[in-house]
Amino acid sequence: MDWFMQAAIAEAQKGQQGGGIPIGSVLVKNNAIIGRGHNQRVQQNSAIHHAEMNALESIGRQSAAFYRDVTLYTTLSPCSMCTGAILLYKIPRVVIGENYTFQGEEALLQQRGVQVEVLNDPACIQLMAAFIQSSPQIWFEDIGTLESGSELPG
Amino acid sequence: MDWFMQAAIAEAQKGQQGGGIPIGSVLVKNNAIIGRGHNQRVQQNSAIHHAEMNALESIGRQSAAFYRDVTLYTTLSPCSMCTGAILLYKIPRVVIGENYTFQGEEALLQQRGVQVEVLNDPACIQLMAAFIQSSPQIWFEDIGTLESGSELPG
Repeated sequence: MDWFMQAAIAEAQKGQQGGGIPIGSVLVKNNAIIGRGHNQRVQQNSAIHHAEMNALESIGRQSAAFYRDVTLYTTLSPCSMCTGAILLYKIPRVVIGENYTFQGEEALLQQRGVQVEVLNDPACIQLMAAFIQSSPQIWFEDIGTLESGSELPG
Repeated sequence: MDWFMQAAIAEAQKGQQGGGIPIGSVLVKNNAIIGRGHNQRVQQNSAIHHAEMNALESIGRQSAAFYRDVTLYTTLSPCSMCTGAILLYKIPRVVIGENYTFQGEEALLQQRGVQVEVLNDPACIQLMAAFIQSSPQIWFEDIGTLESGSELPG
């Protein structure tokens, strides 16, 4: 198991222990973790603090050049918002714990030249499976879909 | 001039008065402003609080259905990150103050079915022109580009 993904899972577990959605992320530069975060929808009543965003915010303002050798590790495939943040800061590489529960914008990342690696790690899958079973409405809210998974009628 | 864009401009001016990047945004639902925000890169040392994100965060957690009749007004064309947030929450309509200073991901929004309207309002253009002239390095940092506007060599 990838050491950095282990750290992202530890963030997801921290979120879980705080009553939140168990998704974690770390930012790696020069083979060291420089930023950490986990989803804060529940804990901070937040619409924007997904794990990846929370990790980016943990390192505050940086120059554009700073991100050009950063790798983002995230336990779950990045949604449109987090994908957009990766593209904004031109983060060149993203390692994804799993895309079994949810497949985000991996195709868009790849189209824009981002290197995407998917581990489909059982620990990441299990964290999400247990959470969605216990709190489906929070999960659907987080990914911006109606609870049925279908669009509004009419 | 559109009343809601005036409110977004007022947010941009509030940001400017606080020493920040003059970009503002409001969220409108049922013909009323329900959320406001402005860029907080400088004020909060933030990598994620662009104006649109700040406005989304101002209304906290909402159901997926809540956003389906929301219009986002923003004084400047949305970057990749803010575009991703619009797509995540399936906001159906975006009114843009100007795309003369910076053209974000309008094409992607339109490809995904978002209605995009660009006003190219002189007040919005003037706010950004004055800011970029005075603080170019903060602006390039905010949009994730190197100050020269070109990519890193090699």
